[in-house]
Amino acid sequence: MRTASKLTLDDVKIILEGAQKKATEMSVEMDIAVVDEGGHLLGFYRMDKAKITSIDIAINKAFTAACSRRPTHEYQAVAQPGAPAYGVNMSNQGRFMIVGGGLPITAGDEVVGGIGTSSGKVEQDMAVAQAGIDAFHSYVQK
Amino acid sequence: MRTASKLTLDDVKIILEGAQKKATEMSVEMDIAVVDEGGHLLGFYRMDKAKITSIDIAINKAFTAACSRRPTHEYQAVAQPGAPAYGVNMSNQGRFMIVGGGLPITAGDEVVGGIGTSSGKVEQDMAVAQAGIDAFHSYVQK
Amino acid sequence: MRTASKLTLDDVKIILEGAQKKATEMSVEMDIAVVDEGGHLLGFYRMDKAKITSIDIAINKAFTAACSRRPTHEYQAVAQPGAPAYGVNMSNQGRFMIVGGGLPITAGDEVVGGIGTSSGKVEQDMAVAQAGIDAFHSYVQK
Amino acid sequence: MRTASKLTLDDVKIILEGAQKKATEMSVEMDIAVVDEGGHLLGFYRMDKAKITSIDIAINKAFTAACSRRPTHEYQAVAQPGAPAYGVNMSNQGRFMIVGGGLPITAGDEVVGGIGTSSGKVEQDMAVAQAGIDAFHSYVQK
Repeated sequence: MRTASKLTLDDVKIILEGAQKKATEMSVEMDIAVVDEGGHLLGFYRMDKAKITSIDIAINKAFTAACSRRPTHEYQAVAQPGAPAYGVNMSNQGRFMIVGGGLPITAGDEVVGGIGTSSGKVEQDMAVAQAGIDAFHSYVQK
Repeated sequence: MRTASKLTLDDVKIILEGAQKKATEMSVEMDIAVVDEGGHLLGFYRMDKAKITSIDIAINKAFTAACSRRPTHEYQAVAQPGAPAYGVNMSNQGRFMIVGGGLPITAGDEVVGGIGTSSGKVEQDMAVAQAGIDAFHSYVQK
Repeated sequence: MRTASKLTLDDVKIILEGAQKKATEMSVEMDIAVVDEGGHLLGFYRMDKAKITSIDIAINKAFTAACSRRPTHEYQAVAQPGAPAYGVNMSNQGRFMIVGGGLPITAGDEVVGGIGTSSGKVEQDMAVAQAGIDAFHSYVQK
Repeated sequence: MRTASKLTLDDVKIILEGAQKKATEMSVEMDIAVVDEGGHLLGFYRMDKAKITSIDIAINKAFTAACSRRPTHEYQAVAQPGAPAYGVNMSNQGRFMIVGGGLPITAGDEVVGGIGTSSGKVEQDMAVAQAGIDAFHSYVQK
């Protein structure tokens, strides 16, 4: 047996609110998903004009980041034609997202979940996901 | 053309918080989902000990209630063997839930979404879903 | 944040071996699956004459037991026609197993995973799953 | 009629242990799957820090190698845009893996199964899969 940390719903609300706040500041409305370390949904917000197609994308970015334990944007280069992981995005029933906007949520050196955001440009999605992470770390450090 | 009412993220948080509060009072931890009138996810909370299998169930109860415009428990009787809608729960790729805990969210005589809850006994799920609806109506009337 | 316990691969081999030993004693060859608390596969053995259709069933019994935190056989009664959870086995993309042979794996009062077995009669599946659990608890207590 | 060779669970454990040993030596924790000649799961180990997204990938690399009777990495070149098998990885419901780390398991000139590994760099996955094969051949020759 080994021990691990788990996000609580209180943590999840901090993360979702942090991400929503950043999206509002950037004037882009997003779908924002938080999952546990097994990729299962913990919390979700759809901002009013976020895309419906981005619900699935946000959830699956969070899933991919949590379960591969890497930011989704790091898979862009290795999944390109000619690169060694070309085709990886077809795995996991197509849930493996290689578009930026999915980040692992860590506590110490442990991955405890993932956040995924979608509806904006990739840089916007990445910034909003990062704001969710930052809100969590500020909160935990208190 | 016609006009329709739409839930906002502010409304959704009211509904989720109302449901969570009731579940806490009842000492049962639940998955709580709110969807729009098209059955697409607007918001989701997983309470800390809610079941992982109930994520899918909560979301699909909300989907079924919103898109069929009826509470999910009303389908129990008609979906029994020998009853006229036997087999309906196989439709919609198995997403059609006939277990209680899914309620349409209405504004006037219009269905604007659905709430679905899961992890407790059916009566508990139904009470928590109703508390979400009640919180919404109290808020709207103010 | 909260803390949780996790099964290691060493634990998983103890569980699989304990279940295989019991199946051998009972002269029935089985598919045996162990999953984590999120329902994700940790280990799997197919005994030589175990059924191929039972691979999916064993894995999904383990998934259901871990993620609903209840033995799968406890869902038989409530999922019958006329009972309150009729239709629940259609949820989770049909992965929700209500046939005996899936048991949660616990450490203290915490569910840390699930075991699922299939290929025999239901009582045989249940006995083999229990033997896996027993092997784990004997090992942990040492 | 013809006769065929079949892997036993004893063989499968030799293969899994051989692969796990190599992964441990390389300080990378992996998901390791062994399937029969029909691509159906025979055995599986998840090492403690192996990726959850790699469960599906390891199983499907093993499936692809066994059922196409070729190493998965041999499909990389032919599946590139402009190459003759472009799109092949969409076949078999997306289970056709073209990333290295899947190898057929042979006995004489016969394919009797496949091994698939995932969580490391592609070269690491390939080395761990090969170590599983090597362990099997050493064992069979005794």
